Amino acid sequence: MTITHTPVTYQQLAGELQRLRDNTPLVHVMTNEVVQEFTANVLLAIGAAPAMIVAEEEAGEFAAIASALLINVGTLYPARLAAMKIAAAAAQKAGTPWVLDPVAVGVLSYRSDAARELLAFKPAAIRGNASEILALAGLAAGGRGVDSTASSQSAVKAAKQLARDTGAIVAVTGETDYITDGERVLATLWGHVRMTRVVGTGCALSAVVAAFLADAPDRLLAVAAACGILGVCGERAFDCSEGTGSFKMSFLDALTVIAPAQLRTAEDNA
Amino acid sequence: MTITHTPVTYQQLAGELQRLRDNTPLVHVMTNEVVQEFTANVLLAIGAAPAMIVAEEEAGEFAAIASALLINVGTLYPARLAAMKIAAAAAQKAGTPWVLDPVAVGVLSYRSDAARELLAFKPAAIRGNASEILALAGLAAGGRGVDSTASSQSAVKAAKQLARDTGAIVAVTGETDYITDGERVLATLWGHVRMTRVVGTGCALSAVVAAFLADAPDRLLAVAAACGILGVCGERAFDCSEGTGSFKMSFLDALTVIAPAQLRTAEDNA
Amino acid sequence: MTITHTPVTYQQLAGELQRLRDNTPLVHVMTNEVVQEFTANVLLAIGAAPAMIVAEEEAGEFAAIASALLINVGTLYPARLAAMKIAAAAAQKAGTPWVLDPVAVGVLSYRSDAARELLAFKPAAIRGNASEILALAGLAAGGRGVDSTASSQSAVKAAKQLARDTGAIVAVTGETDYITDGERVLATLWGHVRMTRVVGTGCALSAVVAAFLADAPDRLLAVAAACGILGVCGERAFDCSEGTGSFKMSFLDALTVIAPAQLRTAEDNA
Repeated sequence: MTITHTPVTYQQLAGELQRLRDNTPLVHVMTNEVVQEFTANVLLAIGAAPAMIVAEEEAGEFAAIASALLINVGTLYPARLAAMKIAAAAAQKAGTPWVLDPVAVGVLSYRSDAARELLAFKPAAIRGNASEILALAGLAAGGRGVDSTASSQSAVKAAKQLARDTGAIVAVTGETDYITDGERVLATLWGHVRMTRVVGTGCALSAVVAAFLADAPDRLLAVAAACGILGVCGERAFDCSEGTGSFKMSFLDALTVIAPAQLRTAEDNA
Repeated sequence: MTITHTPVTYQQLAGELQRLRDNTPLVHVMTNEVVQEFTANVLLAIGAAPAMIVAEEEAGEFAAIASALLINVGTLYPARLAAMKIAAAAAQKAGTPWVLDPVAVGVLSYRSDAARELLAFKPAAIRGNASEILALAGLAAGGRGVDSTASSQSAVKAAKQLARDTGAIVAVTGETDYITDGERVLATLWGHVRMTRVVGTGCALSAVVAAFLADAPDRLLAVAAACGILGVCGERAFDCSEGTGSFKMSFLDALTVIAPAQLRTAEDNA
Repeated sequence: MTITHTPVTYQQLAGELQRLRDNTPLVHVMTNEVVQEFTANVLLAIGAAPAMIVAEEEAGEFAAIASALLINVGTLYPARLAAMKIAAAAAQKAGTPWVLDPVAVGVLSYRSDAARELLAFKPAAIRGNASEILALAGLAAGGRGVDSTASSQSAVKAAKQLARDTGAIVAVTGETDYITDGERVLATLWGHVRMTRVVGTGCALSAVVAAFLADAPDRLLAVAAACGILGVCGERAFDCSEGTGSFKMSFLDALTVIAPAQLRTAEDNA
């Protein structure tokens, strides 16, 4: 199957990164237990301000004042799910854009049901791997644990349908990342397979998607830029790494030093 | 406003660090979900022994046998708050010094109320940024998310009042750190702004404050030494860093290798 | 007391590592709050696929489809313990090998009771430090916080008895690691004391033990290989480290690049 898609350019990454750095968006993060520190450090490195507010008593209050919200169902349990629903409802009411990361949806029924319930609160974007997007669209059974068993390309049709059904921008990430609003499809080719060997790169990407969505004039481009910039930094980190330890360190370094001016002078291949 | 304060010296840092290394204090850590690993690694690097004991069933028993206790309200929810109260009460009863870190107090009412309730158990020290200290003292509304919107200098008066009201040493940290017992004010100028771009440096500092408070002959100096030593290590880490990833690594390395003998020969500027 | 034991060889490490890399075992991890990210990164670096599934609603379903399960009681509380029991029961029923890490058992009665209850679900292996193994065997009162106050050698007799009583392989780790099925005792001498200054190396080892137990033809050897390979990587990491920050990074790098072919050509000293 050929996919009609438009490659994102370095110029576009530069423009979006400049916008994020000018705004320092305050990102309300409700993510899984495993990746909270890494997610916060990724957001800080790129220029956003993370705040992890997780209780039912606080999540709604904060979602209403944050610039954007991430909800990731990676280590879901009832109390946390209740807080997420409160936050999602408050975000919807306040107009705070929010992102759903449907970790391992399709593998386990509890979180699959939860993710579908959360869709009612109208996320601005959904970011997952192919198995997750296929499962959330109701087209397949899910991956192996938290990993995809399908290529991102195979889930583009499901992503477009999911985008049309929900009104969200849908990003299906993998070797190539595809980002769609249900009609147009943007693609980013940056990235390195070592990113899959460090826990939380996908989860952190979803948080960065939220950061770029804050006050975004073009949500499709905002989501694609998040994917593209993390991919570029993943490539740069690989070049400085011996293994996954130095990769993770270099990835945060790359996010810290990546600059719009430098991206503007890079040459697109596509 | 001019603040009458006394700069902490390298000699004092050396003496306090030697004392900590001789004692290997066992620090009971009840902190937020985001920074638990980093906090443990900071304590281990500097020479303390961390133990994260979080349940209502265990927190009181452990607070009574630990050398010191940290309570950080960063990702508060009811079960954890209940355990924290049990631990704080046990610490008070056993004479275990404990530290309150009022993360984002003033921003959200649930944690603001909780922090004020915890004050009843008489913390030995309170460590926060200017917005948090101002809010805890009842003088301002809080910062932006977890970040301060005020300078540390602007909160010194509030810190002195809070120290007098609670009997705790109060540290308000920022570009300059001010540490007060309500009368005297010590100041440390070490540190680097990159510390604010790595999640948990403030939270870890509060844990190190607890470590230094264990069996401290001079609590004001103990708290100031914690601030000073982490500041010195932050400066050293910056000199070895490309971005926030290598900064975090180098910060832990600096904490591992910093030595009293070396501090004793350093020259104070002030 | 002299202990009759057999040293593990590099050839054996090579064979076991090759087996793990060929299988990419899916490891269900239920561990403490402090070390989740590091545990996931260690498993990913060595070649396993971690998934942290923690809720009562999902833990049983996932334990039945995972290749192996880790249960670590480090930051235990009632809801998590309930989920662990469900997972352990499901693992036992499905024949999924599972590992118990009895963090700080003997220090606190709640977790000591919990660990003993979990034994009823027949772990395939138990991995702890000397104080933990002595306490779990009912022979001593436990260590200082999460640290052992006894040498691994002093717990070998208790380990053998615990192995016979439970049917589990028991690994008591320390300067030398001893691994026993109740009759035979294997030993590994690799490792470096700096591993004790980075939080989670022991906890991550228990997760790697689970990974090696997946479809293992020889469980005693599988557990010993996990201990040996992490020890070898710890030595290599120390050689590249300034302090604990670079040690942690280099440890993950060593786990990424360690190769069966390279181990096969290494020379045993013993």
